[in-house]
Amino acid sequence: MSTAEDLARASRRLYALGWMRGTSGNVSVRDGSDILVTASGIDKSAVESADAVLIDDQGEALPGHSRRPSAEAPVHAAVIAQAGAEAVVHVHSLAAVEAAARWPRGVPLVDVEQLKGIGRGAHGDAVVVPVVANSQDMADLSARILAARDPGVPGVIVAEHGLYAWGSSLGEAIDRTESFDWLFDHALRLDRLQRPGG
Amino acid sequence: MSTAEDLARASRRLYALGWMRGTSGNVSVRDGSDILVTASGIDKSAVESADAVLIDDQGEALPGHSRRPSAEAPVHAAVIAQAGAEAVVHVHSLAAVEAAARWPRGVPLVDVEQLKGIGRGAHGDAVVVPVVANSQDMADLSARILAARDPGVPGVIVAEHGLYAWGSSLGEAIDRTESFDWLFDHALRLDRLQRPGG
Amino acid sequence: MSTAEDLARASRRLYALGWMRGTSGNVSVRDGSDILVTASGIDKSAVESADAVLIDDQGEALPGHSRRPSAEAPVHAAVIAQAGAEAVVHVHSLAAVEAAARWPRGVPLVDVEQLKGIGRGAHGDAVVVPVVANSQDMADLSARILAARDPGVPGVIVAEHGLYAWGSSLGEAIDRTESFDWLFDHALRLDRLQRPGG
Amino acid sequence: MSTAEDLARASRRLYALGWMRGTSGNVSVRDGSDILVTASGIDKSAVESADAVLIDDQGEALPGHSRRPSAEAPVHAAVIAQAGAEAVVHVHSLAAVEAAARWPRGVPLVDVEQLKGIGRGAHGDAVVVPVVANSQDMADLSARILAARDPGVPGVIVAEHGLYAWGSSLGEAIDRTESFDWLFDHALRLDRLQRPGG
Repeated sequence: MSTAEDLARASRRLYALGWMRGTSGNVSVRDGSDILVTASGIDKSAVESADAVLIDDQGEALPGHSRRPSAEAPVHAAVIAQAGAEAVVHVHSLAAVEAAARWPRGVPLVDVEQLKGIGRGAHGDAVVVPVVANSQDMADLSARILAARDPGVPGVIVAEHGLYAWGSSLGEAIDRTESFDWLFDHALRLDRLQRPGG
Repeated sequence: MSTAEDLARASRRLYALGWMRGTSGNVSVRDGSDILVTASGIDKSAVESADAVLIDDQGEALPGHSRRPSAEAPVHAAVIAQAGAEAVVHVHSLAAVEAAARWPRGVPLVDVEQLKGIGRGAHGDAVVVPVVANSQDMADLSARILAARDPGVPGVIVAEHGLYAWGSSLGEAIDRTESFDWLFDHALRLDRLQRPGG
Repeated sequence: MSTAEDLARASRRLYALGWMRGTSGNVSVRDGSDILVTASGIDKSAVESADAVLIDDQGEALPGHSRRPSAEAPVHAAVIAQAGAEAVVHVHSLAAVEAAARWPRGVPLVDVEQLKGIGRGAHGDAVVVPVVANSQDMADLSARILAARDPGVPGVIVAEHGLYAWGSSLGEAIDRTESFDWLFDHALRLDRLQRPGG
Repeated sequence: MSTAEDLARASRRLYALGWMRGTSGNVSVRDGSDILVTASGIDKSAVESADAVLIDDQGEALPGHSRRPSAEAPVHAAVIAQAGAEAVVHVHSLAAVEAAARWPRGVPLVDVEQLKGIGRGAHGDAVVVPVVANSQDMADLSARILAARDPGVPGVIVAEHGLYAWGSSLGEAIDRTESFDWLFDHALRLDRLQRPGG
């Protein structure tokens, strides 16, 4: 299967998980010295390999593409360059956005097996998933994400927006996205249990 | 793929999203000077192109159809005529109905990226999704929806009923329906976080 | 498609909706003077036409079947005989069971469009879905359901158990099951909104 | 279908139910005097028969496999040996983990039909699903699970981790896993109903 087909299949899977509603979200994967990213404004339930657009390491479309890359392509390019990632997933996970609203200075996660899914320990390893403010300026948003990034945490939540997660392969980026969403849902459930009327 | 096949596929997709249970919901799309709409009372999990019925711009079935159009066809026709839409989606989204119960004078939405999915700004752009009372008189219901309609908001919630959303294509109407549902779910989650026992 | 194939397909669909977990639930449909019902204790995700068992109007298996009918077959037979139904769906819907716990003397439903999905009015038509106590004696359970049955409501909740719903065809019984589940979910959501810490 | 194909299909099904996100979870089934278990760290949405690894009754991989068995293989082997099970399912069910947080000394279940899905009575049969502390030492975790095990309950929750459930066949282990998840969700819903702001 080609890299473009991998990207298309990943998009359809993330749509089916409920995290790419209304054309939201995008996926990228390094392809040699360039990067393949999903095209702008497309329905993620029906992405095909022709919807993968080649961009340079600044997020600019390479010549010869009729499709415009996702507006968030520069963020993908920046994360790949600076975080040493091979693939980046951006999703509008409701659990991620709600968790960022509940814990705006960073989402604390600790003592749960699923933390191993983001490369951390299941016991006594206090993780804080960084939360940054949203922005429509992609250079600004990239800078915020890279500045807030914790080298030991493969993702950042953009408040009032969604999650960026990454990995050393497209598969790993997807697996970690699934783990982050599970962890945020779990943290919100435990938080409700501890409230008086929870 | 024909327009009728598009309509059938859209219905099956919206059923799978959980918004067309028990034969509820309907979809329409302009076809030349006429309109194709789903037939009345059909199971939306198995809609086929033969279930698309041609109506005129008043919502009346054109001669030659053995199927009766959805009872809500006049509302679809009115929205297409007055809102300048090419396609209309009507769904029984639980999040939409709950949001209308929580905010009966209009559902306030602000400061969240997914607002771009309904054509609005992600920051500082206060949107109010109109809410109208339900009616079994389709002329009455159409008039209420058109009177309450905000030209900058491509949808209206009918209280105790469901959501109408529209767009310049069937795909756009579906994408916006997905965004509305996400936004209502998000608003209800934030609202619960702010309550004492949330 | 044969009646047995219809029954198998219906079971797989109701499993996919989450209402037949762990071999729970069963479906029946009249077939001439007999009744076809799902076999006992089978995984509903993979029901095939060979899993449909023919029973008489008392719920007893007819000769020549190697499969045992569902233990709840007598309840299906009784509802078909007494409620004039052609098909019966029994599901372990969490919303139904929670609603019966919240409103043990009957689940009140009023003023919502989806009520038309169970044959009632969208406005000012106060419906109470009967709730009966659970029993392991099928004659006893059938009697309770028939005694509590409201001729204007095509379903009864068995407390601490699940929902029975019926209709004049298998399709109608499924559609009504979907509407009941939506209505119970909706009622529980509105109830939570009205509580102090909702 | 071979046993390895059964194992692969079971994994994909449990992934689709939402309980194996981010490579979490694993499944095993006895195969003669050996045990087949899912390989370590694989995406459960795409498990194939080649991902089934043969282990001995201590959970050690047999020679000739290029794939490493799941790190939790020794727990599977211990449960099969000591609980007399033919198959074991381990899932990261959010409902199981939340229930263990709510009832850390064991999750009480009583008076609900779905209890029959785990071999217990629907009325007046008080069940407590054991909860044990999590551990990264598989011998330790196995010992805890076996010590806490109730012979009348075919599963144990590992707190801050997930559920182990077993049965006399792979199908029965899956069915019981579905019943446990339903029962935990149900118990948490009733618990919320009884709280002041529930």
